[in-house]
Amino acid sequence: MKHLIIASTSTVFGGEPLDYLLEALSELYKNTDTVLFIPYARPGGITHDEYTSKIQVAFSKINKKVVGIHTFKSATQALQEAKGIYVGGGNTFVLVSQLYKNNCLNILKDVVLNGVPYLGTSAGSNICGLTMSTTNDMPIVYPPSFKTLGFVPFNINPHYLDPIEGDTHMGETRETRINEFHHYNTQPVVGLREGSWIEIKDDTTLLKGPLKAIIFEYKKAAYEMESGSSLKHIK
Amino acid sequence: MKHLIIASTSTVFGGEPLDYLLEALSELYKNTDTVLFIPYARPGGITHDEYTSKIQVAFSKINKKVVGIHTFKSATQALQEAKGIYVGGGNTFVLVSQLYKNNCLNILKDVVLNGVPYLGTSAGSNICGLTMSTTNDMPIVYPPSFKTLGFVPFNINPHYLDPIEGDTHMGETRETRINEFHHYNTQPVVGLREGSWIEIKDDTTLLKGPLKAIIFEYKKAAYEMESGSSLKHIK
Repeated sequence: MKHLIIASTSTVFGGEPLDYLLEALSELYKNTDTVLFIPYARPGGITHDEYTSKIQVAFSKINKKVVGIHTFKSATQALQEAKGIYVGGGNTFVLVSQLYKNNCLNILKDVVLNGVPYLGTSAGSNICGLTMSTTNDMPIVYPPSFKTLGFVPFNINPHYLDPIEGDTHMGETRETRINEFHHYNTQPVVGLREGSWIEIKDDTTLLKGPLKAIIFEYKKAAYEMESGSSLKHIK
Repeated sequence: MKHLIIASTSTVFGGEPLDYLLEALSELYKNTDTVLFIPYARPGGITHDEYTSKIQVAFSKINKKVVGIHTFKSATQALQEAKGIYVGGGNTFVLVSQLYKNNCLNILKDVVLNGVPYLGTSAGSNICGLTMSTTNDMPIVYPPSFKTLGFVPFNINPHYLDPIEGDTHMGETRETRINEFHHYNTQPVVGLREGSWIEIKDDTTLLKGPLKAIIFEYKKAAYEMESGSSLKHIK
């Protein structure tokens, strides 16, 4: 029984980290008291310890203990023994570099496909796609590859941001960037607005949260999907 | 006699491409009627031909002919024969990948250091830094390296955007991203606001345009510099 939550963000505006997801997380992690946390993405460059402590605060609300993967001698063994996994947000380039460096990617994929419940937020969701090429992050380190876990047969764009009317800044909109992506890649991209998540349970893949998602398929006009919709046709 | 213009953007809000720079470009390219244009960054995925035509419109205003590097059999030979070079904006990952693929980087560096006048805007400015790691672009292709031309002993962040007061989006601000960069890299970063440029003439490196630049040095608080200031101390 595969079970994943792939969330746009850890924190919605005005909320506390993971607050809006706690009900779903209680269900996700119902068979374990301890969650293995992967703090590699280090938002704002905070330490692995600091990041793990912050996440513990949120998980305490559902009576779960959080253990940072960096506290184990062997990251791969930690993954193999995990009963629940959370990969937090931060910088996707840093996260992916560290996962490759510690030989985590294949094992992480295996254990999750074999039923260990997985939560990803932001960068931790980005890596659930085929590649990290639709991240919004700055390429502050050079990873060995952009290939990621492929839990879904498309790419994820977390923190999806609609074009801002009247914006005078000449940088590209998110939509323009994703359309550019499709000049070089053919896989679909699911833009997840903040507060949205994808829940995979065995053979179902559903959009959750209060907002619509925006779907970019190769050579098609972008379209929206309502919360509650199945995303199984997107591949 | 080295002469470079490293500009934040090709187009300021409400203006036509390169309009605000035309006077400086007349001076930059005063010894040539023809400018070699490198359209590799392909903004919005437009073709090299389309991009070159758009740039020709701007350069016609100062009576310069633009020739796209893609129209030459050998990109490296085109660089060696160029009397003036312009690297346009678009996606920095695409630009850098194509420059590596066509073995352009070393030759481009050599000819510019030997006096061929260079204009870069946006992605074309980003590559003037030590690495492309402070680009704002989406990593839609995987380049062989993030190392770039190093015409300046720091990194460039073009289209620098100040934090937006009251913003409810939970993505990182530009400042946060650059501070994260400094957790993994030590070179300074110069944030160029739209309408700003750096002009290098032999041994001088001056900030130009109506706005201040923001300077991020490793383990120092960010600070601003007035237009007209020398950036020679930043290294």
